[in-house]
Amino acid sequence: MSELKNDLILKALKGEKMSRPPVWMMRQAGRYLPDYIKLREKYDFFTRVQTPELACEITLQPVDQVGVDAAILFSDILVIPQAMGLTVLLEENKGPVLPNVIKTKEDIDALNCTEVDESLNYVYKALKLIKQELNGRVPLIGFAGAPWTLLCYMVEGKGSKTWDKAKQFCFTQPELAHSLLQKITDITILYLKAQVNAGADLVQVFDSWSGMLSPADFKLFAQPYLVQIADAVSSHAPVILFPKGSWYALPDLSKSSAAGLGIDWSITPEMARSMTNNSITLQGNFDPSKLLAPIPQIKKEVKEMIDAFGVNRYIANLGHGIMPNIPVDHARAFVDAVKEYA
Amino acid sequence: MSELKNDLILKALKGEKMSRPPVWMMRQAGRYLPDYIKLREKYDFFTRVQTPELACEITLQPVDQVGVDAAILFSDILVIPQAMGLTVLLEENKGPVLPNVIKTKEDIDALNCTEVDESLNYVYKALKLIKQELNGRVPLIGFAGAPWTLLCYMVEGKGSKTWDKAKQFCFTQPELAHSLLQKITDITILYLKAQVNAGADLVQVFDSWSGMLSPADFKLFAQPYLVQIADAVSSHAPVILFPKGSWYALPDLSKSSAAGLGIDWSITPEMARSMTNNSITLQGNFDPSKLLAPIPQIKKEVKEMIDAFGVNRYIANLGHGIMPNIPVDHARAFVDAVKEYA
Repeated sequence: MSELKNDLILKALKGEKMSRPPVWMMRQAGRYLPDYIKLREKYDFFTRVQTPELACEITLQPVDQVGVDAAILFSDILVIPQAMGLTVLLEENKGPVLPNVIKTKEDIDALNCTEVDESLNYVYKALKLIKQELNGRVPLIGFAGAPWTLLCYMVEGKGSKTWDKAKQFCFTQPELAHSLLQKITDITILYLKAQVNAGADLVQVFDSWSGMLSPADFKLFAQPYLVQIADAVSSHAPVILFPKGSWYALPDLSKSSAAGLGIDWSITPEMARSMTNNSITLQGNFDPSKLLAPIPQIKKEVKEMIDAFGVNRYIANLGHGIMPNIPVDHARAFVDAVKEYA
Repeated sequence: MSELKNDLILKALKGEKMSRPPVWMMRQAGRYLPDYIKLREKYDFFTRVQTPELACEITLQPVDQVGVDAAILFSDILVIPQAMGLTVLLEENKGPVLPNVIKTKEDIDALNCTEVDESLNYVYKALKLIKQELNGRVPLIGFAGAPWTLLCYMVEGKGSKTWDKAKQFCFTQPELAHSLLQKITDITILYLKAQVNAGADLVQVFDSWSGMLSPADFKLFAQPYLVQIADAVSSHAPVILFPKGSWYALPDLSKSSAAGLGIDWSITPEMARSMTNNSITLQGNFDPSKLLAPIPQIKKEVKEMIDAFGVNRYIANLGHGIMPNIPVDHARAFVDAVKEYA
């Protein structure tokens, strides 16, 4: 392995003194990039995900074209339910569909929890290839979906505005819910450790739907599993937890073994710093829609965001994934504005 | 007008000492009630909204069948864009569609802002009829959509996960956005005052999509217009502002002339009390999905919610609208649990 030429994100996670924060964008590999769209026309989603050469090419595109300070593996959080034996259908520009949802103890018992390593081998191959192709330019981020968010899809079977089927499962059959959450957690820990072995320099756990839970239910159905993952993986690589919408969990999670916490744009930097007692690296939180604003405004607001977070213990990012309709030069302006800060 | 036999909600909004909080449920008129579904099979949405006898019948159903402490007019927030001249299509079980969206100054100039009183006459007729039929049993709540939320629909033309077109309009053409927001505000003030004249005892302003805005953008595009409405209407009747998802705005809004603030379930009662310095009546914030839990659990958690908010300056409610799949006896258990508190 080549030594890292740019290790800003690792330094930020360690709390080292910085001259500027590192920058990357969630969902940077894909969607808004014309070269990605060309590949999408030739190969379907799971072909892109499961072919290491394609996943590698897509992962490197934003490093080459937008100049971010970290690469993130091109993959999907639903590869875990898939590896556990559930069918996952992903049509372009539509949400995922899982035709066989989890309803009973038998459904949970039938999940595959042993051969996950082998069935996800394509991920580790992709990571090794990306690491080699990156040649130390920037660190490589691995990732997984959080147990609560994966439960949402595994029980609901598709996207939802309310996730009420997933919640009903948790509220009416909490023991079953916890057994499913624990199974997902155990596999996710193995999966993330294997990603680190294959070359990931850090990992992020996406709890995309945690904000649908009340603070009390988050503590029951989301937090314990996030904490377990952070505890188990952080001795292997730094872990960033991103419980979208769950600003209320910042005080508790800042005391976990995570190295960083992702936040969305519904909280001010000042409030997030105060709720975490300025004790942990924060990542975020530019409104992705604001990348549709004129470039001078993007640059001005990025500067204000860094002013508010401070350059230390901070990773500049969006507050959620970049949208397909963002012009590439606007994405680049976001990255440039962070790099010009100093 | 008959004197009110149950004025609990008005007392709670005044901050009077209570033996138990009042209770109602957002979207209580409709969707989950079998008698509503029967009417839905006979009359389309706008026939139900625009026929005073039907709107009255639907408004009274939850008072008779679930025993809530307030009736809320059966209507829709999109009657204002409709009265301003935009076509609004509402298919059952689908989101609204506005085929002619606002894009330019000319589109805004073309909006009808003068004859709104006449075109919304059916609302006032419905309120008068409901008031008469209620015969003082419980207070009657009028309502309107907040300017930001109406702008979302008027610019986007349909529901959205990100409302990025609406945001793009605000971020790239802020002067146009403010002129549209001001027009909506002016009309909404007239509309709500007319609702009070027609019999509404209090009014609620629904900012369903305010939580999509960052705190800074909320202060630009949502808050000033909510405050204007509260200032103008509160001398006529108490105003409840419900900026869903905008927990960060509680400190500012608690200093507005609103009598109450609605909150969703992403914030704890303790935190909401602390952020509002215990100075204003709070309304909420039961997770609507929790009405799918077993009845004993609903009752237990409602009791805990009231314990946490306290009986004074509090209106028990859901944190968002009741869902179509809630069994009526679960809705009734929610209401009963509040009434049994004492």
